[in-house]
Amino acid sequence: MGSRLANVLDSEGHEVTVVDRNQQSFRRLREDFGGRTVLGTGIDEDVLVRAGVEGADVFVATTEGDNRNLMAAQLAQKVFDVPTVIARTYDPGRSEIYEKLGLKTYCPTLVGARLLHEMILGKE
Amino acid sequence: MGSRLANVLDSEGHEVTVVDRNQQSFRRLREDFGGRTVLGTGIDEDVLVRAGVEGADVFVATTEGDNRNLMAAQLAQKVFDVPTVIARTYDPGRSEIYEKLGLKTYCPTLVGARLLHEMILGKE
Repeated sequence: MGSRLANVLDSEGHEVTVVDRNQQSFRRLREDFGGRTVLGTGIDEDVLVRAGVEGADVFVATTEGDNRNLMAAQLAQKVFDVPTVIARTYDPGRSEIYEKLGLKTYCPTLVGARLLHEMILGKE
Repeated sequence: MGSRLANVLDSEGHEVTVVDRNQQSFRRLREDFGGRTVLGTGIDEDVLVRAGVEGADVFVATTEGDNRNLMAAQLAQKVFDVPTVIARTYDPGRSEIYEKLGLKTYCPTLVGARLLHEMILGKE
């Protein structure tokens, strides 16, 4: 999902940097991907700085781990003052708590249940 | 996500049966869940019959495995003639192929990338 988003934003002309601790993940980016890639974890401030978090307009954390995403997103928001920050958060409970703390989250669990409900009941 | 959907549909008065090969999963259902639970895998025809697939209006496969979901959904559709069948499919490529084969899929990868894109660009 993260690579897909990166590909789309890059193709639209946005300046995109992808951070991943696994080199293999970068292979999901398109061959003509014009953005940057940084090897490392998003919960490491040095890595974030290398990725250009200072001055970034948007920071999105989309690893498979809720804790990592929430922590990286909080760093981006509180330490580096990124104006738009989103953390993918599978756990609906945690998503709700962090939303209350002022962090934007994307919860695939809630979204999936809602969209499947619409598909089933034919409202889509 | 599956348990959430089951809870909602049950609370709306629909007749819901949850199939899972792990007994622990049923604990995610609400205490007042009024539907049935069947222990087993959805790619086993006997399990599906025990779950009441014959005569069901809707079948949704939401395990973490694309292959299992696609196989179970195809059984429900082709063997048991369930009119509305949906398979959660993380892989966008596979999702597209099976959609062409007439199977409805729900692809969290595509949906997530699309919704995050909207959140970032402020169209939501």
